Amino acid sequence: MAKKRPIIVAMDLEGVLVPEVWISVAEKTGIEGLKLTTRDIADYSALMSHRMKLLDENGLKLKDIQNVIATMDPLPGAIDYMNWLRERYQGVILSDTFYEFASPLMRKLGWPTLFCNTIQTDETGRIIGYTMRLNEGKRHAVLGFKQLNFSVVAMGDSYNDTSMLLEADMGMLFRPSAKVAKEFPQLPIVTEYSEVMERITRFATEQ
Amino acid sequence: MAKKRPIIVAMDLEGVLVPEVWISVAEKTGIEGLKLTTRDIADYSALMSHRMKLLDENGLKLKDIQNVIATMDPLPGAIDYMNWLRERYQGVILSDTFYEFASPLMRKLGWPTLFCNTIQTDETGRIIGYTMRLNEGKRHAVLGFKQLNFSVVAMGDSYNDTSMLLEADMGMLFRPSAKVAKEFPQLPIVTEYSEVMERITRFATEQ
Repeated sequence: MAKKRPIIVAMDLEGVLVPEVWISVAEKTGIEGLKLTTRDIADYSALMSHRMKLLDENGLKLKDIQNVIATMDPLPGAIDYMNWLRERYQGVILSDTFYEFASPLMRKLGWPTLFCNTIQTDETGRIIGYTMRLNEGKRHAVLGFKQLNFSVVAMGDSYNDTSMLLEADMGMLFRPSAKVAKEFPQLPIVTEYSEVMERITRFATEQ
Repeated sequence: MAKKRPIIVAMDLEGVLVPEVWISVAEKTGIEGLKLTTRDIADYSALMSHRMKLLDENGLKLKDIQNVIATMDPLPGAIDYMNWLRERYQGVILSDTFYEFASPLMRKLGWPTLFCNTIQTDETGRIIGYTMRLNEGKRHAVLGFKQLNFSVVAMGDSYNDTSMLLEADMGMLFRPSAKVAKEFPQLPIVTEYSEVMERITRFATEQ
């Protein structure tokens, strides 16, 4: 038999396995300004400053965000997909979210390994900053897995996923916006987890 | 607050979270020769050839090994430790075992991410070879995590773990042989999971 490399499936979190966290926080708190995303404010640092300002103005602390996130559920089908995946391949979530936000959702997804970022709070639990682990963290993680002789499948939905999708041995856009889909015609589009499973299975057979 | 790096705990599998697989296979099948380890035959490739020859002579196929492994359980306390770990930090298992062997034990440990190697079988399920993903795979994985700006804690019991333990930001020997312990006096020794949890917690606080 051919000597195949073991497979790691690198996945974005929000929009791919769970809903967008800040949109959910905006909806549950009624703070409309928290609905802005990188589509509205392209500069991530400016967007996060805007979010932290709004949280402060509304007296919301880390615990309040965590309470909202605790009410969220993975996207329909995501838990079954993750159960399918973990019995067959290695799965790692590469996300721009923060560890302090993600735990309740990770629990519901069966605690997959998560590479993301960290929030800083003051002694009262007010969010005062954050640390992005590194620039282009998703792409560098995919590169790292490849250097460790894994075959890497990647799945994401947004601009900030496209460099990892292009770096992977097989990249897929999962329910992307029309704009992202149009801009990256070389990336196949999938809309259901059943298609994701089919594509991973086919990749594993044919690699 | 200080900007701390997120923590990945890199762990060896056999001897640290589960019993030695080949020893268990030797005991359950009664094939004494399968008890030899790298302590008896230092050359891993020669050791694996010896094992494959013994399996063939006894008509044992991959499925038979898997059936033995399915009867094995994690070491006492390992499941509770893994449950503790996954709620707090990222944990990745770095092992020289094979994906085809590990699944039943991974299921019992809650499917942590596993970096290991692959077995080749022929169409009858006979084990005819194996692929080591890369040389010094454990150390390279730790290096990769550090390059992704993680703080890395590592835990192992054997010679083949020492390079990753020395490469990690904090390395620990878990129940090592007297020989390994003596040869690496710079590595702290832990014998209970409670000590492991204490050391990880202290490292997270002090880093």
